[in-house]
Amino acid sequence: MKEPKHNYSIDLLGSDEQARRIGPIKEAMRAAGIRHCLIYDNANIYYLTGRVFRGYVYINTDLEAPLYFVRRPNHLTAGAGGGAVHYIRKPEEIRGILEQAGIDPDAPVGLELGKNAYSEVMRLAAVFGGQTADVTAIMRARRAVKTDAEIDAIRRSGVRQSLVYERIPHLYREGMTDIEFQIEIERASRLAGCLGQFRVSGTDMELFMGNVLTGENADCPSPYDFAMGGEGLDPSIPVGANGTVIGENSPVMVDVNGNYDGYMTDMTRMYVAGTASDTVLKLNDLSRRICDALASMMRPGAAAADLYARAASMAAEAGMADYFMGHRYHAGFVGHGVGIEVNELPVLAPRSKDILQAGNVIAVEPKFVIPGVGAVGIENTYAVCDGRAAEKLTTASEAVVQLD
Amino acid sequence: MKEPKHNYSIDLLGSDEQARRIGPIKEAMRAAGIRHCLIYDNANIYYLTGRVFRGYVYINTDLEAPLYFVRRPNHLTAGAGGGAVHYIRKPEEIRGILEQAGIDPDAPVGLELGKNAYSEVMRLAAVFGGQTADVTAIMRARRAVKTDAEIDAIRRSGVRQSLVYERIPHLYREGMTDIEFQIEIERASRLAGCLGQFRVSGTDMELFMGNVLTGENADCPSPYDFAMGGEGLDPSIPVGANGTVIGENSPVMVDVNGNYDGYMTDMTRMYVAGTASDTVLKLNDLSRRICDALASMMRPGAAAADLYARAASMAAEAGMADYFMGHRYHAGFVGHGVGIEVNELPVLAPRSKDILQAGNVIAVEPKFVIPGVGAVGIENTYAVCDGRAAEKLTTASEAVVQLD
Repeated sequence: MKEPKHNYSIDLLGSDEQARRIGPIKEAMRAAGIRHCLIYDNANIYYLTGRVFRGYVYINTDLEAPLYFVRRPNHLTAGAGGGAVHYIRKPEEIRGILEQAGIDPDAPVGLELGKNAYSEVMRLAAVFGGQTADVTAIMRARRAVKTDAEIDAIRRSGVRQSLVYERIPHLYREGMTDIEFQIEIERASRLAGCLGQFRVSGTDMELFMGNVLTGENADCPSPYDFAMGGEGLDPSIPVGANGTVIGENSPVMVDVNGNYDGYMTDMTRMYVAGTASDTVLKLNDLSRRICDALASMMRPGAAAADLYARAASMAAEAGMADYFMGHRYHAGFVGHGVGIEVNELPVLAPRSKDILQAGNVIAVEPKFVIPGVGAVGIENTYAVCDGRAAEKLTTASEAVVQLD
Repeated sequence: MKEPKHNYSIDLLGSDEQARRIGPIKEAMRAAGIRHCLIYDNANIYYLTGRVFRGYVYINTDLEAPLYFVRRPNHLTAGAGGGAVHYIRKPEEIRGILEQAGIDPDAPVGLELGKNAYSEVMRLAAVFGGQTADVTAIMRARRAVKTDAEIDAIRRSGVRQSLVYERIPHLYREGMTDIEFQIEIERASRLAGCLGQFRVSGTDMELFMGNVLTGENADCPSPYDFAMGGEGLDPSIPVGANGTVIGENSPVMVDVNGNYDGYMTDMTRMYVAGTASDTVLKLNDLSRRICDALASMMRPGAAAADLYARAASMAAEAGMADYFMGHRYHAGFVGHGVGIEVNELPVLAPRSKDILQAGNVIAVEPKFVIPGVGAVGIENTYAVCDGRAAEKLTTASEAVVQLD
């Protein structure tokens, strides 16, 4: 999907791939009675065009191709999908451009009301006669069902992330703190092509590059909606490594950014300097078994809530309910969609109404936090397939790996 | 300002410092006829409390201390400033808590309409009887005037960032690409305590850790509202280094994250492997002279637009107007406020109405992009002081430094 450098066309997808993405969005818009919409969010612009620009993608159910209203950069040209590029300085110019093209602007405009700032929405609504409709859920639902090209991109990230993870044990040196170890993993990831950028939808999550947890720090709750917490280095970004020295025989959980091409995989593995205790080995094994059980249930038509229930009951059967998905704080999910952003649909949670579809890509992370031990558990990313078992996209060894 | 680990009070500022921040906000609210407001944005929550949590800070002009409505984490206690902590699962609970405390919720509620998503605003408005007022500008104006404690934090980041920059020449190895060089600078920064997190307000800017530009790549416009562009490694995050091999005698511009404690400095320096050309030396010198000229103008009462005009006229006098702040694309500013976020007020731009005040912290970055040469220019962060020259907070050598 990634095009050669210096391709300045507004969309990098090609018309077939773009149609595969926009076609179902138009269908959903028609079903909701929304004639046109204006997409502003970077992740959604990337989804619709294969690149990020500053401006808007305009989709009209009566038009074959989208229109692009671009503020920056100033050197983009018409795209493979055939949509015209209009440079604008401010969104108020959109009205005149539509009128000139014979398009009636006075119909409720679909906007991402769950993402766009209130004042931006008011400004855009005025361009279209004042009425809005919400396309947040349409975009979110659509992005949860990846095209083959998207799964290819995620698969490529998984290969590269797995290779980096295989190198992790060699990055450890005795006496390191959690953050020192993390920095070496960051560097190895970046040198292997990791883009660093960790896209999340909304403001409920902030994280720089990843989370390495060891010791009691694993049991410190964070404000963010991640599976695991950690105190962090500073109260301005209170999550993750906090400078704990990695102890002999103490488990280390590594969950570091897998965004190598705009699409990411999410993977967690366990490491130990010395010998893993029976508790750690047992919990790592339980986590693997939960992953395997959920992977075998991941078929089109399966209920996300049932997958969560299966994970929770396996944890309870093992006597580990009190430590499942945290101890002082329990995360409310065991898995989540992943792609352009790390918090996509479906969500594997008790009250989720999501039903799995072929093309879903789901990170499953059954993790445990035990006082006096730390955090233990793995995470894999899977693609839900038609007529066969889910495909595991994160293939690094799932054993508790000994640090050199 | 940073407190010892395991301080779980909701605010880490102390009552005097918190009053210094909240007092003027209440004044501005009174002047605007806003009786109460609910702050949701992470950067603003950090400003008001010294920590990030998920929830809301409630400020009422009739109450001494704020109230805290907290969703996560679940272990925070009453703060030094005396405000009460109320744990909530959803914002609808706020209404009953206020009523129980004898506070009438039915008054227009101040919200960050320029930051909060439309649907979040609608939900919060309903809690307070449906009417809203906008406190985005009040918060933004207030945060532009730093307290002494904030300037201390920024000064500390400046010291640490400057030490890292002094090490940069030793991180270079012959044959490196821009991104390989950047990764070593990232690692050195992180090992020196850089938090990585690069907070920006809004969605107009995305960047991972920093920007290292060399060669023709400097002249590639980006979608983001930064002074400089660059193609980036991938169209999903099209800015910065693109894998260009660092050429002999070719200038390298380094502008990497200076967030060491929640507050950041912004600094750019020039490097060259080999010998800098006369053009590069001349432009670096021009950039330094513009920085010095602007620093001497940075007094309370000075107009931000006048500072921009001075920079532009110095560039023009040197015959460099066509290359000032870009070539294929010209950034519309030469400086910007910096603190918790990288795009604060004041903005040094032609049509800015900002008037400088003591306590402003401003990054000045007069930069040039010359076809066939690359990007040249430095950047310093200054604190505007009462009755004396602006204080330079970024003190690494401003010469074009030779790479080892």
